[in-house]
Amino acid sequence: MAGKPVLHYFNGRGRMECIRWLLAAGGASGAPGGDGRLMFQQVPMVEIDGMTLVQSRAILNYIATKYDLYGKDAKERALIDMYTEGILDLSEMMLQVVISLPEQREAKISLVKEKTKNRYLPAYEKGPNGEAQHVDGEEQAQLKKCSKLQQDKGLDRYYGITNTRETE
Amino acid sequence: MAGKPVLHYFNGRGRMECIRWLLAAGGASGAPGGDGRLMFQQVPMVEIDGMTLVQSRAILNYIATKYDLYGKDAKERALIDMYTEGILDLSEMMLQVVISLPEQREAKISLVKEKTKNRYLPAYEKGPNGEAQHVDGEEQAQLKKCSKLQQDKGLDRYYGITNTRETE
Repeated sequence: MAGKPVLHYFNGRGRMECIRWLLAAGGASGAPGGDGRLMFQQVPMVEIDGMTLVQSRAILNYIATKYDLYGKDAKERALIDMYTEGILDLSEMMLQVVISLPEQREAKISLVKEKTKNRYLPAYEKGPNGEAQHVDGEEQAQLKKCSKLQQDKGLDRYYGITNTRETE
Repeated sequence: MAGKPVLHYFNGRGRMECIRWLLAAGGASGAPGGDGRLMFQQVPMVEIDGMTLVQSRAILNYIATKYDLYGKDAKERALIDMYTEGILDLSEMMLQVVISLPEQREAKISLVKEKTKNRYLPAYEKGPNGEAQHVDGEEQAQLKKCSKLQQDKGLDRYYGITNTRETE
């Protein structure tokens, strides 16, 4: 098991889940770990290749680069970044529901539903310049696909939102 | 001025400010633009190299790559990502103060002050493994430096927090 990344997180999916998905897309997996040395006193934290990484995006970018899931040049990476940042924005909004006060819950769920249907999912149905496209069509965009699938699962389970097209 | 990036944003600093700083660090500048086609109906948006980029991090990563301000390999980029993500977390907390209700303001400002002094700034005083270091020492970490300087400015002006060491 030498070299297997060690994943430090709470006992839950949360912000570590997309990291687990991305490792899986790269054909790897992580071993669970406790809390360790944290740069900003935060989890998720991942020990990988002799480094102690914190910050979800730093971890995701490193794994995506390591397993060649991050596009062939800066322009492809920019496109992948845009799609994944959109998903992370949406995830963050959903996490806010989980930690919200009971009296704010309904309003936050409505906001998630509205933005998911009208802002986020439509962006995945078309290209950055508005043209129709099948966003999962390119192998290089695996990173995007992982985030997308993860999100579909959460949307379906927690918010009753189904994507407008079938998920593979 | 052919090829000059066009920056679409509100009339203010906000989330576009670190993009302006990073362009300046790369020896470039942007021209102001109105709102345009937005993938997730959001600003900041930047037109650059024939692309329409949204999402702050997608824009920052692209500019950092283009102007060679993003480290020499994946490990250096991971380190830069960690530092900049910390600063973006802090910035986000500060933005929440600006848009908060009057009765929440004081509590949010206290939170910013506490986390800045005890969590974020100390991380910039030492390396990822706790060793003392001068984080601005390496040229490759210019991206980190830009974010840092931007933040010092805001911290000083809005929160009365001065960094524990001198800023160049």
